[in-house]
Amino acid sequence: MPLSLQQVAEHNNSKSCWVIIKNKVYDVTDFLPDHPGGAKIILKYAGRDATSAYEPIHPPDALDKNLPPEKHLGELDNDSLVELQVARGNRKKTADEERMERAQATKPSISKILSLYEMEDVAKSLLSNKAWAYYSSATDEEIARVENARAFSRFFFNARVMRPVGNCDPSTRILGFKSSIPVFVSGAALAKLGHPLGEANIAQGAGMCNIIQMVSSNASLSYAQIAEARVNPSQPLFFQLYKHKDDKVAEQRVREVERLGYNAIFLTVDAIVPGNRERDVRAGWEQEEVEQVAGEGEGKSKADLPRQRDDMKELESSIDIKGTAGALIVNDDVNMTWKKTIPWLRSVTKLPICVKGVQCVEDALLAAEAGCDGILLSNHGGRQLDYSMPPLEILYKLRKHHPEVFTKTEVYLDGGVRRGTDVLKALCLGATAVGMGRPFLYAQSAYGAAGVVKAIRILEREIVMGMQLIGARSVHDLVPEMVERVDWQPVTARL
Amino acid sequence: MPLSLQQVAEHNNSKSCWVIIKNKVYDVTDFLPDHPGGAKIILKYAGRDATSAYEPIHPPDALDKNLPPEKHLGELDNDSLVELQVARGNRKKTADEERMERAQATKPSISKILSLYEMEDVAKSLLSNKAWAYYSSATDEEIARVENARAFSRFFFNARVMRPVGNCDPSTRILGFKSSIPVFVSGAALAKLGHPLGEANIAQGAGMCNIIQMVSSNASLSYAQIAEARVNPSQPLFFQLYKHKDDKVAEQRVREVERLGYNAIFLTVDAIVPGNRERDVRAGWEQEEVEQVAGEGEGKSKADLPRQRDDMKELESSIDIKGTAGALIVNDDVNMTWKKTIPWLRSVTKLPICVKGVQCVEDALLAAEAGCDGILLSNHGGRQLDYSMPPLEILYKLRKHHPEVFTKTEVYLDGGVRRGTDVLKALCLGATAVGMGRPFLYAQSAYGAAGVVKAIRILEREIVMGMQLIGARSVHDLVPEMVERVDWQPVTARL
Amino acid sequence: MPLSLQQVAEHNNSKSCWVIIKNKVYDVTDFLPDHPGGAKIILKYAGRDATSAYEPIHPPDALDKNLPPEKHLGELDNDSLVELQVARGNRKKTADEERMERAQATKPSISKILSLYEMEDVAKSLLSNKAWAYYSSATDEEIARVENARAFSRFFFNARVMRPVGNCDPSTRILGFKSSIPVFVSGAALAKLGHPLGEANIAQGAGMCNIIQMVSSNASLSYAQIAEARVNPSQPLFFQLYKHKDDKVAEQRVREVERLGYNAIFLTVDAIVPGNRERDVRAGWEQEEVEQVAGEGEGKSKADLPRQRDDMKELESSIDIKGTAGALIVNDDVNMTWKKTIPWLRSVTKLPICVKGVQCVEDALLAAEAGCDGILLSNHGGRQLDYSMPPLEILYKLRKHHPEVFTKTEVYLDGGVRRGTDVLKALCLGATAVGMGRPFLYAQSAYGAAGVVKAIRILEREIVMGMQLIGARSVHDLVPEMVERVDWQPVTARL
Amino acid sequence: MPLSLQQVAEHNNSKSCWVIIKNKVYDVTDFLPDHPGGAKIILKYAGRDATSAYEPIHPPDALDKNLPPEKHLGELDNDSLVELQVARGNRKKTADEERMERAQATKPSISKILSLYEMEDVAKSLLSNKAWAYYSSATDEEIARVENARAFSRFFFNARVMRPVGNCDPSTRILGFKSSIPVFVSGAALAKLGHPLGEANIAQGAGMCNIIQMVSSNASLSYAQIAEARVNPSQPLFFQLYKHKDDKVAEQRVREVERLGYNAIFLTVDAIVPGNRERDVRAGWEQEEVEQVAGEGEGKSKADLPRQRDDMKELESSIDIKGTAGALIVNDDVNMTWKKTIPWLRSVTKLPICVKGVQCVEDALLAAEAGCDGILLSNHGGRQLDYSMPPLEILYKLRKHHPEVFTKTEVYLDGGVRRGTDVLKALCLGATAVGMGRPFLYAQSAYGAAGVVKAIRILEREIVMGMQLIGARSVHDLVPEMVERVDWQPVTARL
Repeated sequence: MPLSLQQVAEHNNSKSCWVIIKNKVYDVTDFLPDHPGGAKIILKYAGRDATSAYEPIHPPDALDKNLPPEKHLGELDNDSLVELQVARGNRKKTADEERMERAQATKPSISKILSLYEMEDVAKSLLSNKAWAYYSSATDEEIARVENARAFSRFFFNARVMRPVGNCDPSTRILGFKSSIPVFVSGAALAKLGHPLGEANIAQGAGMCNIIQMVSSNASLSYAQIAEARVNPSQPLFFQLYKHKDDKVAEQRVREVERLGYNAIFLTVDAIVPGNRERDVRAGWEQEEVEQVAGEGEGKSKADLPRQRDDMKELESSIDIKGTAGALIVNDDVNMTWKKTIPWLRSVTKLPICVKGVQCVEDALLAAEAGCDGILLSNHGGRQLDYSMPPLEILYKLRKHHPEVFTKTEVYLDGGVRRGTDVLKALCLGATAVGMGRPFLYAQSAYGAAGVVKAIRILEREIVMGMQLIGARSVHDLVPEMVERVDWQPVTARL
Repeated sequence: MPLSLQQVAEHNNSKSCWVIIKNKVYDVTDFLPDHPGGAKIILKYAGRDATSAYEPIHPPDALDKNLPPEKHLGELDNDSLVELQVARGNRKKTADEERMERAQATKPSISKILSLYEMEDVAKSLLSNKAWAYYSSATDEEIARVENARAFSRFFFNARVMRPVGNCDPSTRILGFKSSIPVFVSGAALAKLGHPLGEANIAQGAGMCNIIQMVSSNASLSYAQIAEARVNPSQPLFFQLYKHKDDKVAEQRVREVERLGYNAIFLTVDAIVPGNRERDVRAGWEQEEVEQVAGEGEGKSKADLPRQRDDMKELESSIDIKGTAGALIVNDDVNMTWKKTIPWLRSVTKLPICVKGVQCVEDALLAAEAGCDGILLSNHGGRQLDYSMPPLEILYKLRKHHPEVFTKTEVYLDGGVRRGTDVLKALCLGATAVGMGRPFLYAQSAYGAAGVVKAIRILEREIVMGMQLIGARSVHDLVPEMVERVDWQPVTARL
Repeated sequence: MPLSLQQVAEHNNSKSCWVIIKNKVYDVTDFLPDHPGGAKIILKYAGRDATSAYEPIHPPDALDKNLPPEKHLGELDNDSLVELQVARGNRKKTADEERMERAQATKPSISKILSLYEMEDVAKSLLSNKAWAYYSSATDEEIARVENARAFSRFFFNARVMRPVGNCDPSTRILGFKSSIPVFVSGAALAKLGHPLGEANIAQGAGMCNIIQMVSSNASLSYAQIAEARVNPSQPLFFQLYKHKDDKVAEQRVREVERLGYNAIFLTVDAIVPGNRERDVRAGWEQEEVEQVAGEGEGKSKADLPRQRDDMKELESSIDIKGTAGALIVNDDVNMTWKKTIPWLRSVTKLPICVKGVQCVEDALLAAEAGCDGILLSNHGGRQLDYSMPPLEILYKLRKHHPEVFTKTEVYLDGGVRRGTDVLKALCLGATAVGMGRPFLYAQSAYGAAGVVKAIRILEREIVMGMQLIGARSVHDLVPEMVERVDWQPVTARL
Repeated sequence: MPLSLQQVAEHNNSKSCWVIIKNKVYDVTDFLPDHPGGAKIILKYAGRDATSAYEPIHPPDALDKNLPPEKHLGELDNDSLVELQVARGNRKKTADEERMERAQATKPSISKILSLYEMEDVAKSLLSNKAWAYYSSATDEEIARVENARAFSRFFFNARVMRPVGNCDPSTRILGFKSSIPVFVSGAALAKLGHPLGEANIAQGAGMCNIIQMVSSNASLSYAQIAEARVNPSQPLFFQLYKHKDDKVAEQRVREVERLGYNAIFLTVDAIVPGNRERDVRAGWEQEEVEQVAGEGEGKSKADLPRQRDDMKELESSIDIKGTAGALIVNDDVNMTWKKTIPWLRSVTKLPICVKGVQCVEDALLAAEAGCDGILLSNHGGRQLDYSMPPLEILYKLRKHHPEVFTKTEVYLDGGVRRGTDVLKALCLGATAVGMGRPFLYAQSAYGAAGVVKAIRILEREIVMGMQLIGARSVHDLVPEMVERVDWQPVTARL
């Protein structure tokens, strides 16, 4: 039996908490303590429509997976549906929404995008402050994020001339899977924050251009939906596993994606606790403030009220500072070890196993010793530990002091890659391929699947041009002698 | 018998100099030559109320300690009290005071403070120009201050993954005293400049969070008051000793704090003469100018007067350039030696003895040899000698070339620490704990004791997060291999 | 028989495409697929006057060389000539043209130009956006362009005093040809973009001052015209060869310039595929946009139209991103080798052979081994491969580790040279001479041949002053010990 | 017989050229070809009053020395004197003069000057553009000037604590002469440009504070006047010799200063030809332009005139680009050698001989070998050869690799010294004293002799403070171990 807005509105507290999501009503009272993002954020919407907050950051199967069927209370009645729609229509747009609309109206033609930097500029103009903050922010002072990119600027080419490079082929194989260029989409959560089709845009664009997508455990579409978005069933997909602290739950997740046809597991090891992404946290607060102010009427502004505070008491009132990121990994395993976790993973899946988030040479050696099929040198795009060594520097040292590792396992890196020359530097230093996360989020935010295709084409053009100009006809021609770490700090491109 | 303003006003010169402080009248004529800040500053208030100038920079027991009882002339009469109050009410606020009031009215909620940088921003907005200049300034071009912080940015982490860090404990022991995090409050003078409760705020906040406060000889509360502000009698306190040139006077001070229950002596060795803090000096001048202009009436502005100067003569008219800092240490011992001073100190106290202000490896070795219980690598926050080597660089060299020192004595550093990662870098390099001075002055200036608590909680959160992300479950897991001094200059956070 | 505008206008498509160039009509229908810049750009002018787009970037003999005589359809009739002239007069000037006119009116006297930097400033103010973008732009983030210049700033002089330098002679010989200073004009295309007399300005100025010009394969005057512009027939000229993929065509070009009296061949090896010069590409688009808008009438602006795009479709509509540069080298040989190409070139000419574009020590060794008469260390002014090692760094390493190369062959460099001291640093490190490209393009853009003379005089003055101040009376006195690579990064001049 | 303005005005060309200087008339016709600054600048004033241009840059005895008595034609008559005065009074002030007047009116009290940087700020505000450009400019891009100062920032202190520094004595001996601090005034020309009393200000201030002044050959007062300005006859003076190309003339100059009681000769070896000081040249042009415009009447502005130029012709019209500096050294010896010049100088004087302008370690060794009494490491404040190695870097290498040199001869440096810590760094590295040029020009420009006294007092305060804080009681305690060259580039103070 359809429910009315009035009925829902009565269940507006922690004793009985109903919410509306996409015109359906759910009783989430019992779920409150288990919500990874905390009860507080749900209670903000108790007795009300929560769709706009819920949708961009939850995969559609989240409700089915987490709420027993009897808590799915049913649909809203027709009058309520109309009322809700009218309310949405009447709502005054925030300044941020107005900015976004203007940006959408003057968005440049995709054919005029020349580089991934320009793609990012467009995305920044189109995204909500909150989405931009979530995508672009990093931990603490964001030094690690910036230095990841700056590391590339310290490596120059010893370009070779007078080599036949007429038929230049930039393709390679990653864990045995063909890739048109030595680049894959690195796992990154919540693509729907930037575009309603979210991760499906990436699946489609990657498939059209024959590169491989790594899907995050925290994707905003279900793993099945993303698999279905592929161009064809043989399009490979990698899975970025955030391991649940309960091995059973983790196993279930691995088996699910294996069943869905995913082709490799990238175990995330650098994000067992949330990083300190202050811009992300602050963007959340700003949004709440805007919403509160909007709800307060016009008569009295906050500035009129005299401030009489008890700082010590305010201090005690708990405030969420985990940001969007914190909620996603609240149940992750903080006690993994090489000895225990890799064998366990081998025992539950036949898929190739890679570790994502190796941040020093020593751990790369341990990963190889543990029999991993691939090692992704990464500091999570600088989002976790500030002053984590830039992946390119680790790759450089690994190649120099332990060249044998590259014969035992594949090595990748991500973080700071923006140009074809960046990709080539990593390959010269031994990487099989490089991952890119944010650039693909920006590309799909700006132009959907077409943006993803465009980003890959830009990279392909830059990679082929670069290969020809340094004298390489295939990825096998890219050798350490072709790059040199310089002892000065070059001017750097955009940081 | 109560005195009148008129009576006081007659004693307005160096022959007979009375001043009013907190509604009481004092005859300071005989004290003029002994005033560490010079006679001139007192004579400015001869025959008048000096409370506002006196209070923030003197401990309450200063008058009792320095003036014999017969110079305490008594209270003002009632009419005078009223007149004084009216005069204060009528006084036009300065531009600086108006700015401070506006800042107070729009101060952010303490719960919204995410980092020590933000705490500093709030404090800067709230503080008088003079207080801000005293707290934040450093010597000469302030290179040492800036480079102290910049040194941290050259150390990156070799973070370790796949280690069990579920139960991460950031606590440690300093000189045997338990501390919830490896951080203590480094000695810093004149907390009352920033907040009326001054050093008591810090004692209270530190006690609530179980960290240790080092109290400056130049505190603006009496050592007893600070001891009384502790959360409980077992809360440890350290004492930062500025040694008087007269051993007897110095001994008296040491015995006083020992009696009051202080737990260690940190002998200051890097501030035997005042540094050249130009911003501090200039802020004092600006304040005087504002006061003078206010007193001059409105008829004629200074700009109207033709300038006819004799530069050579003006040059001779003595001008105080010692700033706030200079006055505080005018009687300090400039002839200390390892051979003489440490044994003397051992002879007057049973407390642990540390030296504060070691600025090179060689002196660290001498300090250890002299049997000091702790060595605080410090250049006084860059306030004394410009281009003094950053403490972190000294720690790095000490750890590398003289690891045995760390087994003989505890080593600390202060200067430039702002983030949990900074703390961890120092600990990896062998420090037992790090001191922080300015951040706690800012925290208590902004939010009183609650600010101090907040600052410690921020640090604790950042330290625990950092430990988990570099693979350490306790401070004992923090080892030199986890940090690496890089050979490029990273971009730096706020300087 | 003269043709009318109406007649021409009928041939406005790819089936039949006529264009007017300098009042003559040409049928270019059959030539469309062979046009190096693509058919699209020609079709924009199909049935119309194409002179303004054609002239600055094509040598005058381009039509004769590429179109058979029967496609030269004849002249316009008189009425059409008048109509065309009137139309040109009525055309509203663009904002860019108005800016250029203002700059021309306030151009400083040539006698007030003190440095090549100032010459560049004048040129920038006078040039169209498009010309400026073509001349000044470089590949990707333009790091290589900037670092070429910055490399010079890392080399300081160990200047020698007390040496007799009264008669200082800066002259030298390059490939046996006398040069008044150790500088030559490096090959650079399309001088007419900056000045109607184009490369002839350079030939004249170089001849007047006795330095040598290297003429680009892509000059905007014919090789014969440039040869004729020489001050006298013995004035040497070098030829920068872009080798056509067809050896026969390439041979023809070499034989032509040999016949015309050119004195050496510089084989270009660093530009076999076009670089990614985004500013150049974008400047082209902006110009098109201006022209389109001008043609659209005033009634409706683009902003009024609702945007309804299919990004994926727009993506597919091919867009030219090669820029001006790409078109010039579309037929170049991408399969050259040391073994094959140098012997081939030897077989078709008796002239000295140099390679232009060597970018690492290894290739310099191979070039010397291949018997080249000269090696031009160059990365094409940073226009091809970003992060290509700065030529000065390569020279430094080559001189340090392979001093014998300098006895076998002459070594030059270009890229980033702007001051006499830059020239001297290169000579101290073993270079016979240095090439300069952009500075001469700017000089002739600003003041024609006089600008070229002025630029050379500035250089001569700076070189002589520098030689005297470092203690050298002739180029033979310039030795490696006189320069030192410093281990810090000095502040840098304009980048 | 007194002359009239009308009579003078008739001699307004190169055939007969009279000028008025300080109300006297001179016939300079025959002198025109010998004027070091060229005939052109004199002819600008032919038949007119030249006082304002002449005075600041010529010593008063210049006319006596260069013009035979019969060319001193006599005084102006009374009417002419009045007319001249009226004309001066009527002359409209230039914008630059008005700015200077405003600055003079709001000049801060000398007692408020805290550092040499602030002294420079005041001087900059008071000086004419031309004087500022002459004093502050350097050669080419001014990199050498900036890097001189920046070099100091790379040296940090290993400060020593716990040393008795109660009686700190900063005095030293230079060539046997007592100096209150280890600083001398380095030779710098044309002090009258900044203050009417010019070099006499410096003599007086230096004498009052017991430091030593080095007087330039190109002083704007006569050597005798400067000697007379001394505080007492035993005040030492050094002489900076620009050696004339004619040994006889040079000998005459040396003998003159020896006779006047000067105490040492500093032979300038780094300025045998003028540097390329573009700001200086440009400032001269701007002044001429202002004067021309002022003379042109108001009817027509230059902008109204159509520009029709022949660049090639304008190029040929000779333009003076030597600037103020060039004129001063036009007759200097460009063929000096160690073998010839030092023995010659020894043969004409008994005074100690030092070389000023040594720019590399090798020449320092040669200077010591040649028996010089002192070596002044200097690149002329960066005014001559750009990218000349910073003197501090040379000192560092000299001390490290050739410590024996410091036992044979005294070593000094100048260039970039602004703080007491800079002085101490040089002394730790072996310098006997450091020279400072521009800072004293600025000090006397701002406040005359009092400014010089103030500058020395600031330095003394900073030096004593620094010595005490690094643990030195006398200059003998300053040793190499106290400074350390760091391997990063610190932030730098004002450049």
